[in-house]
Formats: sequence, C-alpha cells, structure tokens
Amino acid sequence: MIITISREFGSGGRELGKRLSESLGIPCYDKEIIQMIAKEHGFDEQYVSHVSEKSIQVTYPFTIGRRFAVTPKDITKQAVTVAVTQQTIIENFAKQSDCIIIGRCADVILKDYNPFNIFVYADKAAKLQRCMEHAKEGETLTLVELEHNMRAIDKNRARHRDFYTDAKWGANENFHLCINTSGFEIKKLVPILAEYIKLWFEIRKTI
Amino acid sequence: MIITISREFGSGGRELGKRLSESLGIPCYDKEIIQMIAKEHGFDEQYVSHVSEKSIQVTYPFTIGRRFAVTPKDITKQAVTVAVTQQTIIENFAKQSDCIIIGRCADVILKDYNPFNIFVYADKAAKLQRCMEHAKEGETLTLVELEHNMRAIDKNRARHRDFYTDAKWGANENFHLCINTSGFEIKKLVPILAEYIKLWFEIRKTI
Repeated sequence: MIITISREFGSGGRELGKRLSESLGIPCYDKEIIQMIAKEHGFDEQYVSHVSEKSIQVTYPFTIGRRFAVTPKDITKQAVTVAVTQQTIIENFAKQSDCIIIGRCADVILKDYNPFNIFVYADKAAKLQRCMEHAKEGETLTLVELEHNMRAIDKNRARHRDFYTDAKWGANENFHLCINTSGFEIKKLVPILAEYIKLWFEIRKTI
Repeated sequence: MIITISREFGSGGRELGKRLSESLGIPCYDKEIIQMIAKEHGFDEQYVSHVSEKSIQVTYPFTIGRRFAVTPKDITKQAVTVAVTQQTIIENFAKQSDCIIIGRCADVILKDYNPFNIFVYADKAAKLQRCMEHAKEGETLTLVELEHNMRAIDKNRARHRDFYTDAKWGANENFHLCINTSGFEIKKLVPILAEYIKLWFEIRKTI
C-alpha cells in the first residue's frame, strides 16, 4: 500500500498525509526526506529543500554551448546529487514497507510500485485562509505577499515535475483521486478517505 | 443533496450515476432530460441529443455581419430553445428533490444549489475497453473509429461547457472529487463513494 500525495500549496495536502498515516497505521514521509539528503551529503537543509522541489533545469540551464552558463558547475552537481539521492530514498521507503510520500514526484518515481496517487487542491481563497491560519508565530506576510509566494511555490513544483515526466502537474490523468479541500476540515475527511483507499487496494488485488 | 457528474466518454460516468442513484435512493437524470425536451417542443430525440451537448456557438456561428451565416435562423432558434429548456428542466429537478444529474453542465447551471460535483475520467485504454464491452449488438466500429468518436464527443462536451462557463471542462477546480475509473468495476467503488458524498453533505451542513 504505497500512497503518494501531490498538492497545491496551502491545500492541506501535508495535513491529509499525516492524518492518513495515523489512520492507516503506516509511515508518512515528507520533510524527513530533506533531512536524510542533507545529512547524507552534509548539505544545508534549507538548500536541499530549495533544490529538491525545484526543477534541475532551473538550476542547470540548458545554455551550455549557446551562451555562457552562469551556474557554477559544483552547484549543478549538488542539485543532481540531491535529485538522485531523493529518488533512491523514496524508492527505499517503498521497498521497506507500506507508506505515504508527500510531494517530490513520488507518483512518477514509484510508478512500478503501483501507488495510489492523490492530488489535493482547493480554491485560492481557501488556500490563503489555510496559510494564514497555519502561519508561524512572528510571520508577517501580507495577503499579496502570501499569494505571490503561493504562486511561486506551485510554479516551482510544476517545473520540478516537468523534469521527471511529460505529465503536467495537477493533470487528472496522473492521479487516482483528486480532492478539493475547500471549506473542509481535513480531519473529517480522513476516515472515509482511508476506507476508499483500503477498498481501492483490495479491488486492485483481485484484478 | 444535489450531485452532478461530468464525465469523459467511456469512463463509466453514466453507470456511476445510475448506481449511486440506487445506493443513495435518489433519482438520476440523464437521457430523461433529452426525452423531456423533445416531448415539450415536438423535436426529434436524436436532434435534441445532438444539440444539447454541443455548444450553441457551433450551431450558431458568430459570423453575422462578417460573412454569410450558413445556419438557417430556425435551426438556431431551436438550439437556443433546447438550451433554455434544458436549463429549466435541470433547475426544476433540483428544486423538486435530491437528485443526480449527469452531464449537461449541471454543475454550472446548479451552482446556487451547492451541488457535489464529480468528474469521472479514465485512461484512454480503459475507456476504449469499456466502450467495446458496452457496444450495442450489431455495432461494428473499428478501434480507430471508436477512438475518433470518443475524441469528437469529448471535444463537443468541452465546447458545450465553454458556452456556459469560463471554467475549462475537466479542470479540477470545478469539481469536489475527480475519480479515475481505470481498471475498476464501478459497482465496487459505489458504496464507499456514497459514504464519501453523505459525509460531505453532513460536514457541509455544519460549516
């Protein structure tokens, strides 16, 4: 039972993953992946976080031979290292046991493991409200700044996906279920969603 | 409890609607809408079926004043009559009782009724297989013809949607749940889906 969760920023995908993890009694990996990569290679966690959800193409522009490539070679190398390590870690999680993996194109990386792929999304207003409710203490972003950040993060996630697959980020076809969380408390949706997923894996076994 | 189902051709959306209807004990309207329009205006059912899922723009090209409009005025008038009658019938269903409505942009038409909007889709291979399994006796379409028809029908549905709304057909944001039916027997998904929907309406009530 491998479950992957792709999500729009602010839609509650991470909370959904953590709660599903409790409900199904299987581990959920999210920031842990970042920490493992950072530890393994002695990188800064924030740097890994930045690189691991950005496209390698962004860090490594396809300009060589055409114009001067501004990105120093060692940075490019690090970004590739992060991507490769991330892929290995995600595959190892899937080999070890049933699990939930949030983000990082795990649906594409784990294609051969037949995961159940969820996409979590919401209306812009719902996402902004969620972000404000979950803001860290001392965070003083205005609504405009928050919206700007939200767009930037989702754009990076889409670019990152481009690196792994032709399939567009958020396009239905990649997912088994797309859930709109607008206006809902995630925790109320989790029990029924857990049932849906269990049934899906049961049916899957019999075909 | 108003539920709308939009669906890709061959994805099993109609079957899902009919089975949900049995499971939830509420009526499901699909071809009935066509029959009612045809009866009310003395139109041929096949004609209504053709017009009611095609964009009015297609039947009524925006060429007036620019070049000769080939569509006779009375045909245009009939197409508008179908669209208006369809809208009225769908709204009347929603006013009468809880119900499920398949296709016809009911999610947009019934926006004010806060429906639960489902999008049903599947991989191309799964849709083709489904179409072949459900082919009427004597139907002798080749796989290529079937695929061509499938694309044409979905294209018309998308165009029809364009007439009612800016929202793209099949874009996540319009739906509360998008379900990939590839490789599954619809009837096995129905009980859990019915639970999901009931819960959704329950939560909705309390917020």
